[in-house]
Amino acid sequence: MTQPTDKKRTTRRRFLAGAAGLAAAGASSARADNAKNLPPNVADWTRQLGEGVGVRAYGNPSKYEKHVIRRTVPWLTATPESSVSFTPLHQLDGIITPNGLCFERHHGGIAEIDPNDYRLMLHGLVEKPLIFALDELKRLPRVNKIHFLECAANSGMEWRGAQLNGCQYTHGMVHCVQYTGVTLKVLLEQAGLKPNAKWIMAEGGDAAAMNRSIPLGKALDDCIVAYRMNGEMLRPEQGYPVRLVVPGWEGNVWVKWLRRLKVGDQPWFTREETSKYTDLLENGKARQFTFLMDAKSVITSPSPQAPVKQKGFNVISGLAWSGRGKIKRVDISLDGGRNWRAARIDGPVFDKACVRFYYELDWNGEELLLQSRAMDDTGYVQPGKDALRKIRGVNSIYHNNGIQTWALKADGEVENVEVG
Amino acid sequence: MTQPTDKKRTTRRRFLAGAAGLAAAGASSARADNAKNLPPNVADWTRQLGEGVGVRAYGNPSKYEKHVIRRTVPWLTATPESSVSFTPLHQLDGIITPNGLCFERHHGGIAEIDPNDYRLMLHGLVEKPLIFALDELKRLPRVNKIHFLECAANSGMEWRGAQLNGCQYTHGMVHCVQYTGVTLKVLLEQAGLKPNAKWIMAEGGDAAAMNRSIPLGKALDDCIVAYRMNGEMLRPEQGYPVRLVVPGWEGNVWVKWLRRLKVGDQPWFTREETSKYTDLLENGKARQFTFLMDAKSVITSPSPQAPVKQKGFNVISGLAWSGRGKIKRVDISLDGGRNWRAARIDGPVFDKACVRFYYELDWNGEELLLQSRAMDDTGYVQPGKDALRKIRGVNSIYHNNGIQTWALKADGEVENVEVG
Repeated sequence: MTQPTDKKRTTRRRFLAGAAGLAAAGASSARADNAKNLPPNVADWTRQLGEGVGVRAYGNPSKYEKHVIRRTVPWLTATPESSVSFTPLHQLDGIITPNGLCFERHHGGIAEIDPNDYRLMLHGLVEKPLIFALDELKRLPRVNKIHFLECAANSGMEWRGAQLNGCQYTHGMVHCVQYTGVTLKVLLEQAGLKPNAKWIMAEGGDAAAMNRSIPLGKALDDCIVAYRMNGEMLRPEQGYPVRLVVPGWEGNVWVKWLRRLKVGDQPWFTREETSKYTDLLENGKARQFTFLMDAKSVITSPSPQAPVKQKGFNVISGLAWSGRGKIKRVDISLDGGRNWRAARIDGPVFDKACVRFYYELDWNGEELLLQSRAMDDTGYVQPGKDALRKIRGVNSIYHNNGIQTWALKADGEVENVEVG
Repeated sequence: MTQPTDKKRTTRRRFLAGAAGLAAAGASSARADNAKNLPPNVADWTRQLGEGVGVRAYGNPSKYEKHVIRRTVPWLTATPESSVSFTPLHQLDGIITPNGLCFERHHGGIAEIDPNDYRLMLHGLVEKPLIFALDELKRLPRVNKIHFLECAANSGMEWRGAQLNGCQYTHGMVHCVQYTGVTLKVLLEQAGLKPNAKWIMAEGGDAAAMNRSIPLGKALDDCIVAYRMNGEMLRPEQGYPVRLVVPGWEGNVWVKWLRRLKVGDQPWFTREETSKYTDLLENGKARQFTFLMDAKSVITSPSPQAPVKQKGFNVISGLAWSGRGKIKRVDISLDGGRNWRAARIDGPVFDKACVRFYYELDWNGEELLLQSRAMDDTGYVQPGKDALRKIRGVNSIYHNNGIQTWALKADGEVENVEVG
């Protein structure tokens, strides 16, 4: 834990000077309907035996957390099989996303694959084409890596100005888990690459047979053919039983339900890298193969779905990540980008993974324009939205990593607003 | 990823020389019942649209993973409300335990607490007694820490020799997640400690009102009043909405459904630290307040519930942890402890957290006695079971961190056996 500065310590003391003393709380609780549950009284749940072990062999969240779910935006796509559900970032903390809340993006729905019938084919410009059953992949040397996964279209609605009201919708196509699997490098070494090998095509086993071209250099660098997330087998909606992990690159190339890897000497120019997942510029030309997800951050709380409940001491919490490497620093602005101060990064900082940042604020009720700005260890600094638009125009859907602004109102409500 | 040595590389090549070539696999698949699903054929799941987004707002594992569950041993305790369910360690990898599979240990069942009615009382030898609502705890500065939690009774059946057949039962009372919360130190500073403060009593809000005494030094060092695990709110069976995190110490003091913290000048000698959770020695005396969980490890696969399926290249996988600090090294023996060689630790190594280790083995079918031995950064080395028994006898239930032995048979089956 980073030690708070003396200034913060003073602020914190001030906050708690206003916290309920035991006697006072007892007095007020006596008036409340739920007084029987407040200490020093003994609550109902202490008076009766609770549910035993074995009832829930695979556990689920409390019934009081039923509002913490992935959410969809029905008008966004024509069908639910080719759509998105968003991670509730405003209701999470730390850096690990629970598997049940990782956002979904499908192109032909969730393939339901019997792991006994699963096969991965590796062919093309290789010395020896190979087919792997799941058990064969599991026999190979394993690696464990914590990485973020962000859809290229995350924050895509923001190109033309502040749109959806909530970080679940503006930034919720990102999650971060620990993957276990075999490196793609090991598989390619087994097959043996031919001298003219330069690209790899990864194809999914879903109804869309989603496929993308990936340069060989990346494939040999840090890609993982993964079958586990956060310890257990991949979830169906995340590619069960096998997906490709392409650290730091757009989610679309992290092919799920991975069926086929083909080695070639040039890209395949598939649908998803020509008509989609390209960046249409102002002059009508499009940038292609823009795989990298640049440094980005967002304040997850307070945010439009997580308003401030009271004046005084509050924690500003957020996530930052970069496809280029490690997050080195996150700054916070309270005035829409005029002044910046360093946020506190708490918890582990991994390469191409989310980090959690905090900024402790003694809020007197004044209106604020909250922003966060991420910097990574390559020196890249997250740009403002207008700076991004100057180069890229507003035609694009993808790769919007501009600084997000939340307007905190006097009543504690928060709005998504447009500040260059 | 650690680079494999040349020797390992050769082994791996040898393994894959035996893997199915594309043509051969195609030929054999033509004979199989499920041939239609094998490449280069297109499987059923690619021919039909899958389930869309929004159907499972909170996701669950694949229907093909229904066997990956916490399991109970009905004869172990009189009632399920005062019992244990075990983490399926043999079916997991990496270091993060998914929340739904974290083992349970209750003394009066799972308290079902409405978070709006939740209160934490802090009183005793303090300047200002305080009561915190959940929202008030969330307003305080937060920390994120990944820690293991191990029940003192984990491996307790092994004191008198090899017993239960499976690491889920011998070692499954351990899990490892990322916690988010406020340090206990911050809370105590707010209340203000009186000069004679030396111990803290933590009490649960469950039907057992489980309570334990903790020395003030530990409370001020690294304890966390946590409300989140792996990003989301604590699960009900893990103390929702608030539990105490006592890094590196026995799980019994990580009080769940935390209701009360009382500061005193001596321990309370509660039921759980007098009649239970003490270590009965050979001479009839009992060690008390043996909080620390010493360095320990277990091979999770192969293990009795996870036999070896074929000869040739196989990955030995396991977990190691230490309540004293970081795991520095893990050794593997194939011959019951006569010869040792270093395992490869893969993935992050945190203070008082699980680490994942691997050892790649080219198995020719010979019978082996598999063991793992953990060393931490204080120089502590996990002892053999007999070495432990020499000092502690066999009357104890708790704190068995002896080296575990799995006998790998010629047919790939694995048994829990007794080797000093």
